[in-house]
Amino acid sequence: MQDSPLARVQAALREAGLGALWVSAPANVQYLTGFESPEDGRVLVTQDSATLYTDARYTLQAAQQSSVPQFIGRPPESLAHAAEQLARLSAPAAFEADALTVAALDILRESWPGELVPTQGLVSGLRLRKTPAEQENIRTAQKLADQVYAEVRPLIQPGTRELDISLEIELRLRRAGAAPAFETIVASGLRGALPHGTASDKVIQEGELVTVDMGAALAGYNSDMTRTVAVGEVSGELRRIYNAVLEAEQAAVRAVRPGLTGRDLDDVARQVLERHGLAGAFSHSLGHGIGLEVHEGPRLAAISDDPIEAGMVITIEPGVYLPELGGVRIEDLVLVTETGYEVLSQAPVERV
Amino acid sequence: MQDSPLARVQAALREAGLGALWVSAPANVQYLTGFESPEDGRVLVTQDSATLYTDARYTLQAAQQSSVPQFIGRPPESLAHAAEQLARLSAPAAFEADALTVAALDILRESWPGELVPTQGLVSGLRLRKTPAEQENIRTAQKLADQVYAEVRPLIQPGTRELDISLEIELRLRRAGAAPAFETIVASGLRGALPHGTASDKVIQEGELVTVDMGAALAGYNSDMTRTVAVGEVSGELRRIYNAVLEAEQAAVRAVRPGLTGRDLDDVARQVLERHGLAGAFSHSLGHGIGLEVHEGPRLAAISDDPIEAGMVITIEPGVYLPELGGVRIEDLVLVTETGYEVLSQAPVERV
Repeated sequence: MQDSPLARVQAALREAGLGALWVSAPANVQYLTGFESPEDGRVLVTQDSATLYTDARYTLQAAQQSSVPQFIGRPPESLAHAAEQLARLSAPAAFEADALTVAALDILRESWPGELVPTQGLVSGLRLRKTPAEQENIRTAQKLADQVYAEVRPLIQPGTRELDISLEIELRLRRAGAAPAFETIVASGLRGALPHGTASDKVIQEGELVTVDMGAALAGYNSDMTRTVAVGEVSGELRRIYNAVLEAEQAAVRAVRPGLTGRDLDDVARQVLERHGLAGAFSHSLGHGIGLEVHEGPRLAAISDDPIEAGMVITIEPGVYLPELGGVRIEDLVLVTETGYEVLSQAPVERV
Repeated sequence: MQDSPLARVQAALREAGLGALWVSAPANVQYLTGFESPEDGRVLVTQDSATLYTDARYTLQAAQQSSVPQFIGRPPESLAHAAEQLARLSAPAAFEADALTVAALDILRESWPGELVPTQGLVSGLRLRKTPAEQENIRTAQKLADQVYAEVRPLIQPGTRELDISLEIELRLRRAGAAPAFETIVASGLRGALPHGTASDKVIQEGELVTVDMGAALAGYNSDMTRTVAVGEVSGELRRIYNAVLEAEQAAVRAVRPGLTGRDLDDVARQVLERHGLAGAFSHSLGHGIGLEVHEGPRLAAISDDPIEAGMVITIEPGVYLPELGGVRIEDLVLVTETGYEVLSQAPVERV
């Protein structure tokens, strides 16, 4: 049996000679406790205990969701409760330097005895490889996104506003009890050249490519997928860049396996686009890990040494953006397996 | 003519003997520049200049919206550009201690010459009293919320799910180019006892009270309003608590004028509820300031010395929560004027 995330953090504390960790990054709070309103929670992990701190708005919810005991209250009472636990430690306590403001650290230092040392990545490092339960959560979110995409695909027609498509996606996600994982991107025609083109009131026209980048957030876990589709007949030049991106995307997906780095996969896609003379128009990195956060490790980029390991869930999303012409991005959600990969996003990739 | 927010920050820097301020709180970035994607922006304000730092996704948007010059780029280039400006200063630079993580401060200290000192409230203090243009933005957001509420009010009927009401509100806000300012609360029957009861799939029943707490976010500014309505005939006990909350709410609204503190207003409402034997069930504070953030200063609470001043926009939102019975909250959005107050939320408060 695999150790729980909490047991692994406690082992890491022992190894690092730390008495405790104050966890304030929301994704880490949820990861260690299961509490699904982690923005309003903190966790004190010691080598042999853990406490979730949240307030009276969440008394019932925390009792139902949290796998660790709860303290219900706000500062200063909550900090005083933690101080009692810290007073018993013989080793220094650590905090998450990338998830605590300078002012918040000052308050902890005034409220608590003993030394307080910065750490980074102690919990988020564990989150890189997803447990089977986490994989299932992401799979479920992606299945819902696939279904919503299928329902909304027929709306991508001349005369529809980009905004109406994104609203329809959002409405269907919410009706299903989920939420958009990020602001849905619907970018048509020349707007396709904006990698970040969230839906506008532009009306879709015959002969355009339309890029839809969408994700579902469900029980804290996120999915991410992009499809580019043609509305009617598109020009030969648009068809050429579409097929180049598709070739790059498929090559990178097929290359996924443990033992590579993020750079290796980025290289695969970039080399395909280079052969098509389009590498200069691929202006972002290939992809990213995803889970409790939409963007988390590993990075798939030209400058990334991050190892690709079994259990990671990553996006593969090359794109080409040409301001005078438009753009294409195709993105799949991919689980890294012991022997290779499994594509979680099942929405069809159309021929253009 | 009133000085611009930027000129007032620059005057505050001179007064405090500071050479510059690195602004990283999103609301402060928007306040000083007008840039409407402030999560991806930072501002370096010196005594006689200001620069907005953002990346290439926003080149066009920043040029259109920002009132100060832009540097387009990411770290390390952006930090190197700022370092050149900082090298010319003879006084220390400051950062926002409540808006910068410990890890982010480390990076700034490695990248920049000279001393870097913590500050708090330098910009957010200026934001307490809204300029006429800001008041207009909040007024416009609230007008939209009033209109959407009026359109959706007829849906609050037996057989409708709470979720369908919140979805309809959200859809109408988005169609109008706005967004929900926060997750819309629709809490019916016993769920009304949850102050934080975001809409669930519970079906509304005859004889229940339904609390709707909603806001519109438009061009960065937020509104906030709560109405509780009866579905058919409600029990005498529900009617009693409704009328007690309404009396407390109206008394507090009518008391609003410059020169009081947040505690004074909280007291007014709490004393009315005390007379009805309900003070113990009013488990949160009376209200808060609102503007670029949904929750900002001043605090209206039993422990708040914050002064109430002309130009502030505040919420007045007493509530009573009884787990065995249900709950009521009534909230208005109120502009503090030189002589008293103006209620911005115009959705009718119904008789129960």
